[in-house]
Amino acid sequence: MQVAPFAPEDLTEDGFLGGRLRIAQPRAGYRAAMDPVLLAAACDARPGQSVLELGCGAGVASLCLGYRVPGLALTGLELQPAYAALARANAARNAIPFEVVEGDLSQMPPDLRARSFDHVIANPPYFGSSDGTPALDPGRERAQREATPIAAWIDAGLRRLKPEGWITIIQQADRLADLLEGLKSRAGATTILPIAPREGRAARRVIVTARKGARTPLKLLAPLVLHAAPEHSRDAEDLTKVARAILRDGQILPISR
Amino acid sequence: MQVAPFAPEDLTEDGFLGGRLRIAQPRAGYRAAMDPVLLAAACDARPGQSVLELGCGAGVASLCLGYRVPGLALTGLELQPAYAALARANAARNAIPFEVVEGDLSQMPPDLRARSFDHVIANPPYFGSSDGTPALDPGRERAQREATPIAAWIDAGLRRLKPEGWITIIQQADRLADLLEGLKSRAGATTILPIAPREGRAARRVIVTARKGARTPLKLLAPLVLHAAPEHSRDAEDLTKVARAILRDGQILPISR
Repeated sequence: MQVAPFAPEDLTEDGFLGGRLRIAQPRAGYRAAMDPVLLAAACDARPGQSVLELGCGAGVASLCLGYRVPGLALTGLELQPAYAALARANAARNAIPFEVVEGDLSQMPPDLRARSFDHVIANPPYFGSSDGTPALDPGRERAQREATPIAAWIDAGLRRLKPEGWITIIQQADRLADLLEGLKSRAGATTILPIAPREGRAARRVIVTARKGARTPLKLLAPLVLHAAPEHSRDAEDLTKVARAILRDGQILPISR
Repeated sequence: MQVAPFAPEDLTEDGFLGGRLRIAQPRAGYRAAMDPVLLAAACDARPGQSVLELGCGAGVASLCLGYRVPGLALTGLELQPAYAALARANAARNAIPFEVVEGDLSQMPPDLRARSFDHVIANPPYFGSSDGTPALDPGRERAQREATPIAAWIDAGLRRLKPEGWITIIQQADRLADLLEGLKSRAGATTILPIAPREGRAARRVIVTARKGARTPLKLLAPLVLHAAPEHSRDAEDLTKVARAILRDGQILPISR
């Protein structure tokens, strides 16, 4: 757990959304890449609505969302104090209002327990608690590893949603069964967006959205394909048109509802 | 339940696999289209192996499989005596050995209960027992409606599999959560193949394969796209190259394992 604040020399400042957002991230800790940007793009929050991000880290997903949609009430929950402080600093740096609460989603802080939200978003750790090798950096380890099972993330998220509110989660594709199980009988209108590195490839990530209390059937959408070049090219900018619109221009993901 | 045999005038003879298979089907009952052909194409059975089809109807899936792979021991279980008789007649008509057992998968006949198989395939009814309007034809009604919940199909299938045997199911895409739940902790190496009518569209069907007792992570494959024309054209033969290879030439689905 990263408790002491990050020293300035331990941080890098990186551009997101084509440089529109400037985000400080720990050089050695958990570093955001595409996933929180895709998560933000999949959340169809409207001006005036409230959004809770579970495990917000340095704040990339919430700040991308706040950049795209003005007038949101954005709240983040973060277990590690150093990341929570970083998220607040990143919000100030980009002049996006963002309330960051320190706490554990499996023991929801009383302040948040008393509130409900129009949207919940989350990018939970990707590795099961029993597989893979531990990351050397304890903050990255905490951010990537599943101390809290995915079911607890979904449970905490659904509890914090208003009736008919939306939960949106990005996760490794191989966790799809766990995601659907967590949502079972408590949310509907479940939409699965596979995210594939290239045309014709298996999905590496899925974004799952669902509506609290809805009964509408599940939908399995066509994949979002990230890269256009047929083989891994040295051109870092081989993004497909739709991926570029999301990752560089901060546009919403075309998930039809 | 269709008990009395079909009268000849109540049957049509249809070509499958580009006319390579001739299948008699009831004019007014459950009529197979692409789904059993896709199911057969997704089953990677090898010569000498045994295959059990749950709810084989007129036998299209098993006979497609028997056409592609010589030397299989094919067995079908069918609840409705008239369909079981039709499946036997269709097997004889196409000179493909196919043993058809009459019985209910939720009360597995003792003969089958004593046996285990390398592969189980199934195309369970598509409509939940409480939605949709009933079909006018009782045989079609039985074939399309969920008298037996999908969990029971999966349970019966997994019980009849040898250790490390494969189960392959085609189903409406919106039942994906139920399929994954049924397989949970009893099968692994789960592979989901979305089947979409056209590029960029949501999947209408999924083919899910899984291996009994395996622990390998789930894979969400790129969709199989059936039709090439951008809008619904009057050209019935607007199949994509890969769909044509499966549906007209009886080739195996490229599901990498």
